[in-house]
Amino acid sequence: MGIAEDTRWLDATDQAALVASGEVAAVELLDAAIERIEHDDTRLNAVTIRWFERARATAAVGLPDGPFRGVPFLLKDLWAHFEGETLSNGNRALKEAAPISLADTTLVQRCRAAGFSIAGRTNSPEFGALPTTEPEAWGATRNPWNTEHSPGGSSGGAAAAVSSGMVPIAHASDGGGSIRIPASCCGLVGLKPSQGRITLGPFRDESNLGVELCVSRTVRDTAAFLDAVRGPGVGDTVIAPAPSRPYLDEVGAEPGRLRIGLLDTYPDGRPVHADCADAVRSTAALLEQLGHTVEPGFPAAMADGSFAARFGALWSTNMGTSLARIATQLGRDLVPGDVEAHNVAQAEFARRFSGVDYALALAANVEFRRSVQSWWTEGWDLLLTPTLAEPPTRLGEFANTPDAPMAPLVRAGRYVAFTPAFNSSGQPAINVPMYWNDAGLPVGVQLVAAYGREDVLIQVASQLEAANPWVQRRPAI
Amino acid sequence: MGIAEDTRWLDATDQAALVASGEVAAVELLDAAIERIEHDDTRLNAVTIRWFERARATAAVGLPDGPFRGVPFLLKDLWAHFEGETLSNGNRALKEAAPISLADTTLVQRCRAAGFSIAGRTNSPEFGALPTTEPEAWGATRNPWNTEHSPGGSSGGAAAAVSSGMVPIAHASDGGGSIRIPASCCGLVGLKPSQGRITLGPFRDESNLGVELCVSRTVRDTAAFLDAVRGPGVGDTVIAPAPSRPYLDEVGAEPGRLRIGLLDTYPDGRPVHADCADAVRSTAALLEQLGHTVEPGFPAAMADGSFAARFGALWSTNMGTSLARIATQLGRDLVPGDVEAHNVAQAEFARRFSGVDYALALAANVEFRRSVQSWWTEGWDLLLTPTLAEPPTRLGEFANTPDAPMAPLVRAGRYVAFTPAFNSSGQPAINVPMYWNDAGLPVGVQLVAAYGREDVLIQVASQLEAANPWVQRRPAI
Repeated sequence: MGIAEDTRWLDATDQAALVASGEVAAVELLDAAIERIEHDDTRLNAVTIRWFERARATAAVGLPDGPFRGVPFLLKDLWAHFEGETLSNGNRALKEAAPISLADTTLVQRCRAAGFSIAGRTNSPEFGALPTTEPEAWGATRNPWNTEHSPGGSSGGAAAAVSSGMVPIAHASDGGGSIRIPASCCGLVGLKPSQGRITLGPFRDESNLGVELCVSRTVRDTAAFLDAVRGPGVGDTVIAPAPSRPYLDEVGAEPGRLRIGLLDTYPDGRPVHADCADAVRSTAALLEQLGHTVEPGFPAAMADGSFAARFGALWSTNMGTSLARIATQLGRDLVPGDVEAHNVAQAEFARRFSGVDYALALAANVEFRRSVQSWWTEGWDLLLTPTLAEPPTRLGEFANTPDAPMAPLVRAGRYVAFTPAFNSSGQPAINVPMYWNDAGLPVGVQLVAAYGREDVLIQVASQLEAANPWVQRRPAI
Repeated sequence: MGIAEDTRWLDATDQAALVASGEVAAVELLDAAIERIEHDDTRLNAVTIRWFERARATAAVGLPDGPFRGVPFLLKDLWAHFEGETLSNGNRALKEAAPISLADTTLVQRCRAAGFSIAGRTNSPEFGALPTTEPEAWGATRNPWNTEHSPGGSSGGAAAAVSSGMVPIAHASDGGGSIRIPASCCGLVGLKPSQGRITLGPFRDESNLGVELCVSRTVRDTAAFLDAVRGPGVGDTVIAPAPSRPYLDEVGAEPGRLRIGLLDTYPDGRPVHADCADAVRSTAALLEQLGHTVEPGFPAAMADGSFAARFGALWSTNMGTSLARIATQLGRDLVPGDVEAHNVAQAEFARRFSGVDYALALAANVEFRRSVQSWWTEGWDLLLTPTLAEPPTRLGEFANTPDAPMAPLVRAGRYVAFTPAFNSSGQPAINVPMYWNDAGLPVGVQLVAAYGREDVLIQVASQLEAANPWVQRRPAI
C-alpha cells in the first residue's frame, strides 16, 4: 500500500488536514500523487505536462499557509499561464514552439497562495473546443471507469486525474460545458460558477462565455476552492455580486423548500438517452423526498431554435480570435497542420461575420440572457436537467474528418444539449454525480441557479451528497 | 413674477419639498415648468418633443410617492423609450416615421416611480454622436449663457433646459462624454456613473461604452437621483458593486485627505486652451486648501496614441448596429437623407471590420481598462483633468461637410480629449462647474474615481460646491 494508496481517496480537505496537523509532510503528499500519476497515467494519459521537480523544490522550500497547503494540484492545459512554464492549449504548433509564460494568471496566483503543490498540466482538446479530450497534439485521455470511453471534455484530463485519485481536485474551465461535461462522464462534482465570479485577468476578460474553477470528488472541496480563488481583478468588466458568507458555510446548510423545474427531455421534447432520463428522474424523486417541490418547467428560451446559431457565432468568433493570437504568439502565419480541422473550420466560419454582425450577435445573446434569467424571477429556485443527452461516448466519436470538418461539432451539438445555454446566460450550474448506468459509467445531472447564486447550488448538492454518498463509488485502478 | 419665476432656480430637492409639504400642488409645479419652457425655448430650442397634456393628466390623477414627487422632468431624445410616445434619437427618418414605444426602459420606469412629472424630450445630436446638439432633424439647441455658442452634447438639450431653469434636473446619457461635456458647457453637475451602475435594459445592454444618469444644478440632486434609479435589471451582464449606503449620505460627508493626480495638459503634453488650464489649476489649488494632496500624475495609458483608433472601432461599430436596428424598426433599407453624413461615414468605416477584428478591439479595450484602472490601485484616489480642451464652441463648429464627412469627428477629437477614456475604462467621472471665463462661458473640470466609487466623487464635488457655490451664478433669461 504505502502513502500513495493510503491517501488516494482522501479529498483535498482531508489531505490539507494531514499537512496542517504535521502528520504528513507536503513533500510526502506530493510524492504520493506523483507515484499515482506515474503509475496510472500510462493507461489514462491525463497529465501531459509535468513539473514534478519544480513542485518538489517548491514544497521543500515551504508553501504559502493557505487552506490547501500541501495538496497536490494540476492546472488545465488551456489559457492558465503559469510563470516560467509552457502552455499548449492542446495545440500542436504551440506544443512544438513551447513558449514560456512570463506571468501567472490571477487564478493561478490564487491557487499558489492557497498552498497547492502544482505538479503539472492536464490534457485538453485543442482550444477546449470539443466535449472529449483527444487532441492530435497529445493523444486521447481515457475514462477511468472504462478506458474505451471518453472522460468528456474539455476538462477531460482534469476529470480523469481526479476520478482516478491521482489528485483530489484539479483546475478546470467551462465555455460551453467543459467543467460539467467531464464531471458527468467521470462521476465528479463540477461547478461552473457565475460569469464574473473569478477574474480571468490579466490576460483574458469576463465578457464572454468561459469561466474557470475545478472538478472535485466532494462538494466541500469545490466550496472551499471557490472561497480561495473567487473575486474580481483590477479592471474587470463583469463582476458577480459578492456572497454574503463563505461558500464552505453552505455545505450542509438548510436550503429550505425549493421549487425546482424539471427538464427530462431535450428542450424541444425529443427524448434523451434512457440512462440520462433515469438519472434526472431519480434525482427529482430524491429531491422531493428531501422536501423540495419538483414540477415540469424550464425557461422557454432554451427551446429557441435560433440559439445554436447565435452561440455558434460567438464560439466561432472566439476561435477566430484565438487563432489570431496564436499566430501573434508564434510570430508567423498559421499553416496547414498547425490547427485541427474542426477548429480551422470554425475560424473560417467566423470570417463570414462582419464586426456589426458580431456586435448584433452579442446583443442577441444579452436578449437570450435576459429571457432565460427571467424564469428564475417567476418563482423558480432551481432548474434540474440531464448534464448530457447521452452517457459518456466511446473514444473516437468526435474524430476529425477533413472532408466534413464541421462533423465533430454537429455530433457534439446532439450530445451537449443542456450546458451551453448557461454559458450564454452567465448563470452558475453544477454537475452532481447522481447515477451510474448498467455498464458502470457515470451519468450526471445538472442543477442551475439564478445568476450569482452558487450558494444555493452548494447547499443542494451537499444535501444530495449526504443522501447519496457517491464518493463510495471508485473506478478500478 | 408668479410661480414660474419663483420656482425657476429651486433645485429638485427643494421643489419636491414644496409638493411633499402641500405648499404647491404637483400640477402647479408642472405648469410653472411648462410656462418656462414655452417662454424660454423659443430662444433655446432645448425641448423638442412635448407631452404637456399627458403630464398634466398624470399629475392630476396622482403621482407615485417617490422622492421626486411632482418635480418636472425631461427625458433625452436618445434610446430612452417611454411607453406610448415617440423617440427619434435626433434622426430625421425616425422623426418622420414617429414609431410609438411599446414599453418603458427600466430607467424610465424608475423615473416614473420616483414621482417625476415627465413633460417631454430634450434635443440630442443624431444618435448622440457629436459634442454639440445641432441635429439636422430638429435644429440647434443654444447655450443659455451665450446663444451664439453650443450647449455641448450629446445631452445638450438637457443641459440647456436645466441651466436656464426650465426644469431643475433632466435625464442624460454618456457614451464618450455626453453627460460631462454639456454639463461643462452649461455650468452644471454632470456625473457619468460606473458602467453597470444602472441597467440599460430591457432593450440595451451594459457591456459597451454608454451609461445614463442626469444633469443637475446641485450635487444633492444628482446624488438623490442616483439613489432613485441605480441598480441592475434581470439578466444584466455588467453590474457595478452596490454602494454601502445611499449616495445622498455622501453629500457633505468628509472624504478624508485624498491623493489627487493633476493632468492640466493634453495627455501627450500639448497645452489645452488657457481657460481650461486655469479652471483645472484653480480647482487644484482649492482642493489643496481643502486639505487634499494634488500632484502631477495620470494613468500612462491615457497617452497611448492607439486609443483613438480602438475607441473609434467600438464607436463606429455601435453606429453600424444602430443603423441596422433603425432599418429594422423602419421596415426598409436606409436611403440617402435618412442619416447625417458623419454618421453614415462612421457606419461605413465599421464595415471594414470583421467580427474577429471587432472581438480583438473589445479585448484590447479590456487591456486598456485594466491598465487605466491599475493607476487607482497605486495610491491615487482621484484624477483631476479639464472636462474639455476648449471653452464651449460656437454653433456650427461641427457642421456636416459631405465632401469630408469625417471632418466633424476629427474636430471633435481635439475638443473631447479627456472624457472617452473613462467610457472605455467604465469608471465614474463627474463634471464640476468650477469656472466661468472672461466671456462669461462656463468651463468645467472633471474628477475621475476608481471603478464603483461614485461615493468619493459625490463627497468631493459637494466639498467643492460648499467652497464655491456655483448655483449663485445664473444665465440671463
